[in-house]
Amino acid sequence: MSQQQTNDFTKWYIETIQKADLMDYTPVRGCIAFKPDGYELWEHIQAEMDRRFKETGHRNAYFPMLIPESFFQKEKEHVEGFSPELPWVTEAAGEKLEERLALRPTSETMIGYLYSNWIKSYRDLPVLINQWANVFRWEKKTLPFIRTSEFLWQEGHTAHENEEDARKETMQMLNIYKEVVENVLAIPVYDGQKTPSERFAGAVDTYSIEAMMKDGKAVQAGTSHYLGTKFAEAFNIKYLNRENKHVYVHTTSWGTSTRLIGSVIMVHGDEKGLVLPPKIAPTQVILIPVGPWKKTPAILEKLEEIHKALKEKGIRTRIDDSDQSPGFKFNEWELKGVPVRIELGPRDLENNQVILKARDEDEKISVSIESVVEAVEKELETMQKRLYEKAKAFRDANSHTDIDTLDQLKEHIANSEKNGTIPGWILGGWCGDDACEAKVKEETKFTSRNIPFNPPTTKHTCITCGKEAKHTVWFGRAY
Amino acid sequence: MSQQQTNDFTKWYIETIQKADLMDYTPVRGCIAFKPDGYELWEHIQAEMDRRFKETGHRNAYFPMLIPESFFQKEKEHVEGFSPELPWVTEAAGEKLEERLALRPTSETMIGYLYSNWIKSYRDLPVLINQWANVFRWEKKTLPFIRTSEFLWQEGHTAHENEEDARKETMQMLNIYKEVVENVLAIPVYDGQKTPSERFAGAVDTYSIEAMMKDGKAVQAGTSHYLGTKFAEAFNIKYLNRENKHVYVHTTSWGTSTRLIGSVIMVHGDEKGLVLPPKIAPTQVILIPVGPWKKTPAILEKLEEIHKALKEKGIRTRIDDSDQSPGFKFNEWELKGVPVRIELGPRDLENNQVILKARDEDEKISVSIESVVEAVEKELETMQKRLYEKAKAFRDANSHTDIDTLDQLKEHIANSEKNGTIPGWILGGWCGDDACEAKVKEETKFTSRNIPFNPPTTKHTCITCGKEAKHTVWFGRAY
Repeated sequence: MSQQQTNDFTKWYIETIQKADLMDYTPVRGCIAFKPDGYELWEHIQAEMDRRFKETGHRNAYFPMLIPESFFQKEKEHVEGFSPELPWVTEAAGEKLEERLALRPTSETMIGYLYSNWIKSYRDLPVLINQWANVFRWEKKTLPFIRTSEFLWQEGHTAHENEEDARKETMQMLNIYKEVVENVLAIPVYDGQKTPSERFAGAVDTYSIEAMMKDGKAVQAGTSHYLGTKFAEAFNIKYLNRENKHVYVHTTSWGTSTRLIGSVIMVHGDEKGLVLPPKIAPTQVILIPVGPWKKTPAILEKLEEIHKALKEKGIRTRIDDSDQSPGFKFNEWELKGVPVRIELGPRDLENNQVILKARDEDEKISVSIESVVEAVEKELETMQKRLYEKAKAFRDANSHTDIDTLDQLKEHIANSEKNGTIPGWILGGWCGDDACEAKVKEETKFTSRNIPFNPPTTKHTCITCGKEAKHTVWFGRAY
Repeated sequence: MSQQQTNDFTKWYIETIQKADLMDYTPVRGCIAFKPDGYELWEHIQAEMDRRFKETGHRNAYFPMLIPESFFQKEKEHVEGFSPELPWVTEAAGEKLEERLALRPTSETMIGYLYSNWIKSYRDLPVLINQWANVFRWEKKTLPFIRTSEFLWQEGHTAHENEEDARKETMQMLNIYKEVVENVLAIPVYDGQKTPSERFAGAVDTYSIEAMMKDGKAVQAGTSHYLGTKFAEAFNIKYLNRENKHVYVHTTSWGTSTRLIGSVIMVHGDEKGLVLPPKIAPTQVILIPVGPWKKTPAILEKLEEIHKALKEKGIRTRIDDSDQSPGFKFNEWELKGVPVRIELGPRDLENNQVILKARDEDEKISVSIESVVEAVEKELETMQKRLYEKAKAFRDANSHTDIDTLDQLKEHIANSEKNGTIPGWILGGWCGDDACEAKVKEETKFTSRNIPFNPPTTKHTCITCGKEAKHTVWFGRAY
């Protein structure tokens, strides 16, 4: 992380996404406009996710956005969890409504109501449905992409014959999230189970993938829930099983949202602006004529040729032949995070070469014009992996496994503040008592991220009370 | 149109879309759930539209769904047009809002507000943005897909330097709509200009494509608006032009919605159920084993082979090897509108052939197993064109050009009712007086559909007053 980023990471983040033209604020509290360069990041994430959902047998559907108040009352934990954040429609077409309608924060209740009509027999199972939609959570503190009053997401909702099938689905979808976030967004994540206090409202078990931003804070990048029969009981979703008995289905739900856009920025960005993983960059290659190029028409012609050849390979590319100086253009496209820059000037043309520069590396390399397509393809692939490795090295360096007590954690945090470094996350033992978890939060603002499936080491004593640890938990500050 | 459809077209429509599993009603007034088979129709329409939008330089964005009441006040005609249909958020997170927020019926106002910040100079123009979103219009009478309180659509919003560019854009997008609706949905449309009384609230000129359903009623299948400088003036969207003067931009907007799904059903469906154009059918080919197939494992093996070969060609195909009888399966997949059925029984296998049947034709044909992929590809293509031709023949046969006066129109309608035929549409002259247009509606329930660009003939006298006609207009009953 650069000095500029360290000084005020949030300020850097907000300035960067605005300068890079990803979003704009609006007069509606906490609601942003996704500008084309911001929205296209979402389109690429959507396409990658959607393909994998379909390959695993899911289909998309669309459910009403407005949810009757009475639906929320049916699942006690659910209503307690979401009520404080709901916006309500109370009038329509000039009349007061008999029942208030909530703007959906998530669709378990509406879908529970419908599934109870759709599912009659084991032959109807599993139901494997996903929805791409806007949702609303009227939160006090907002941050573009990361926490907004309205955001875009996908929510999968499945129903199964038994617990085993439902748990298998829950894990399958968490694994898909991990694969996309790591391979497409180049963001390493810890996968694991949430502690009870951090569970989705109404879930039996919640699993998450957790990503570390450059300021050391965590973003919960995706969650997958085993809901047991809680919603089935609340909405009476019963089916005739193979033994001819009416029993409850087991349901799951899982979601990822536009906060993934924010995570990409906060994991890869630097003091020059965005650094976008090639797989989701709206522009993957920017071609810039340099030197006295206007006097040599052959330069633009050659760039057009390269542009065409790259496009034919499915590479998203643009030529910047505007009147600005090369230096201005370099800054501009670096700010926008374009992975690869190609420069071509009169001398390069004479030497039958171009200059290639990757956004995240300092040196430039010369590439013969004949092999430029090949070189670009290779660089996009290499950079995709390199960004992941860099992010992983950063994440690992800031994942501390040598802290065993609350006092040590406080000392670690104090040292970070003194040294101007980030505190990162720590791996701590936990006895399983909510009070011990709450005390960590109270005294350090570190919250439990998840109980990782594969902790780098196992902790034997609770970080708070020192008794025997039942779980090894990642703790960190979170968005 | 079959007898069953004639008797009560709406009843047939609602029963068919429910039996075919496209949608379900919900307890929220006028809001439906799009089930996977219904939603997938939309996904295919989206993909076809979106590709064409991008090919013509448009990019997607996303704007807030909630619109402050004060925004609507800024354009007088706009607020008058939409106010009666708005649902309002008045409270959120337990507090009453200071200003009511409308659920967007369309986004001109929010986008107008933002464009006024984004557009500064002619270098920023044109702005070519599209949005895929949910919108709300709280209407009294609803009909699934065709008119629902919440629906899905796309809305393009562009800004240009001058009227000429904006009008070119308006027509370009209308032409894209016509091309998609005709070539992808196999629905012939009349393209033309709306009369002033049927204009979009706030437009200078509205253009539409109009499709005739099997009951003779019209669906406005897409609209494209030249908004002039009306929204630019309301939201102060000014730019520095090439002559260094601050002037208003000229804007357009254009939209198509999930009512296209309803149109497909009402144009192509028959008494057996849906008839889906191959290009958007979720399942294009259904493979069904017949005869005593369970005793001959080679049958399912061969179907698997064919299934695989079709999939490799990108054809959406399924095998129905359930325990139901072939007759039951035939009905089921005909109801769902699957374009092509392949049957394979023991005798067929001996003869090295399959039976192929197109959904919209009566006869079955034998095809050698070696050439089945080729035959299917050809049939899908032929059927796509045939559905268009059938729909066009129907539309043309019910587009009457020989009616010149209101009395003749009334007689025509009376005859239709007596004979149990549909009145269809009529081409009428119009003097341009709103009162004459209103009288047609009052006395016949026929409304002006549009002033076609290429009328089959030109009318010289106004259908109502008999004076000189300024326009030749399609009139018909509409959804």
